[in-house]
Amino acid sequence: MDILIVGSVAFDTITTPFGHIDNTLGGSGSYFSLAARYFATPNMVAVVGEDFTAENKKVFLDAGIDMEGLEKAPGKTFRWGGKYDFDLNKRETLFTELNVFENFQPKIPSNYQNCAYVFLGNIHPSLQENVLGQIQKPEFVGLDTMNYWIEKAPGELSAVIKKINALIINDSEAREFSDESNIYKAAKNILSQMEETKHPVLVIKRGEYGVVMFQYGEDGKLQIFNLPGYPLEDVIDPTGAGDALAGGFMGYIASTEDITWENLKKACVAGSTLASFSVEKMGVEGLLNHGLDDIRSRSEQFRLLANF
Amino acid sequence: MDILIVGSVAFDTITTPFGHIDNTLGGSGSYFSLAARYFATPNMVAVVGEDFTAENKKVFLDAGIDMEGLEKAPGKTFRWGGKYDFDLNKRETLFTELNVFENFQPKIPSNYQNCAYVFLGNIHPSLQENVLGQIQKPEFVGLDTMNYWIEKAPGELSAVIKKINALIINDSEAREFSDESNIYKAAKNILSQMEETKHPVLVIKRGEYGVVMFQYGEDGKLQIFNLPGYPLEDVIDPTGAGDALAGGFMGYIASTEDITWENLKKACVAGSTLASFSVEKMGVEGLLNHGLDDIRSRSEQFRLLANF
Repeated sequence: MDILIVGSVAFDTITTPFGHIDNTLGGSGSYFSLAARYFATPNMVAVVGEDFTAENKKVFLDAGIDMEGLEKAPGKTFRWGGKYDFDLNKRETLFTELNVFENFQPKIPSNYQNCAYVFLGNIHPSLQENVLGQIQKPEFVGLDTMNYWIEKAPGELSAVIKKINALIINDSEAREFSDESNIYKAAKNILSQMEETKHPVLVIKRGEYGVVMFQYGEDGKLQIFNLPGYPLEDVIDPTGAGDALAGGFMGYIASTEDITWENLKKACVAGSTLASFSVEKMGVEGLLNHGLDDIRSRSEQFRLLANF
Repeated sequence: MDILIVGSVAFDTITTPFGHIDNTLGGSGSYFSLAARYFATPNMVAVVGEDFTAENKKVFLDAGIDMEGLEKAPGKTFRWGGKYDFDLNKRETLFTELNVFENFQPKIPSNYQNCAYVFLGNIHPSLQENVLGQIQKPEFVGLDTMNYWIEKAPGELSAVIKKINALIINDSEAREFSDESNIYKAAKNILSQMEETKHPVLVIKRGEYGVVMFQYGEDGKLQIFNLPGYPLEDVIDPTGAGDALAGGFMGYIASTEDITWENLKKACVAGSTLASFSVEKMGVEGLLNHGLDDIRSRSEQFRLLANF
């Protein structure tokens, strides 16, 4: 099954206590696709500059990602630089050069317009809504956003989240979006803002503490699933972990075509598995070269970790 | 089954964003016992002052706690005052008056000396070791400590933890005790310090993020169980939650007389259930008046929350 993804492709310069890497392939779209492709075929819509090489593109093509939607524009690719402190929980953005990403107007190739599964990566909410309008019959749409859009474009964000199925954000975003400090109150508030969707899903990412998912059941009761983070002694680079989680989550749903609550839980496991692989190496390296056995085996570890 | 508990009984003055209470019954021994008694009969060893009334004692007696080990000493009962900030994660100690607790020398009544299950609450490690020496045939011994003893009596603490079965501490204590910031590295370090015990267990409490438990299996592989915190929209008073967790955990083990890994997981659920009740009201109030149905029902909620 195909999954449409709109997001960023970037060159990242990352410093962690354990390594440094210059201008490595990154961006939310890259992490998402390189995780989702273990389950489904990502159809990627993104923009890059003239500095994006055939070698860069080959990383995606070798991973089975459809790149017809990759636009090459005059100028340079989006660049981001960041630095993590010792305990990896805080990161400082050193620079952001939007470059060609600044005027990105996603155009969905006609081949992609019949995708039933869609992920709207973290771009301006009105662009997210515009992309959704280009899809013929979306079955299950996921969306990510960030504090910047919550502050700068709250009206547009409110409009688009009424049209999606799953909002996948981190805990500080959930708190800011709802103006509630308690995460369970925040979740109820956000789900009430998505009320036009039938059975909206909210996935809140909590870093090392894992992920917590919310959805009202048929009986009107709030269902909550809380999956701990994978126990890692060495986190090398947290960049993109949340995008890898979203990619595994959405890819698993697209591959199973099953949006029951029990299957959404398994999608959380799939997402958390890819997120845990992602942080074990610098940049997107941690998402490359896994066999399905690796993925099954780590997912099974989550069962040992969480079930009783 | 009986469980011996040595700990503090105090009068607490607590301020949270949701309430204030003066000189309410508290202390680690009180929270522990009032949680453990849903599963086993706590035999409590503690000291109080002349200001401890028959009405205070009745709270324990009504809960089925054996109070033969409660010593009444000249002077005032231990008093503690604390204040929580808005998000309840930080607390400030406003005052600590040790009073009769300062010279507490626990004497174990002969009736208690054959207890197979023992919990050494947070007192000086050399007193903990002394108590343990008074027990005839301990089967499973749990121990709590705090940063103060890790800093002030590291040698005595190292000595006593070699003789116990389960160390139950919070994450900041685990980090300080092991000098490791990563919680999984911290756990390995601490378990290696407990190597004289056969199959030592480490339970690390993480507040709203729940609990993570470690033990090496027969095959030498590290087993990890991570139970999320119960989803609570309103946390009224976090005081004593960790002691209630330890009480539920140890009480469950004493009642089932089963220390297999699968049963230790269920003990974590029992402990987390009592911790979640504890924080719903001011002081020890949240631990009073539950039926076994309440406890079973909340434990079942943990299954829905965590299992997939």
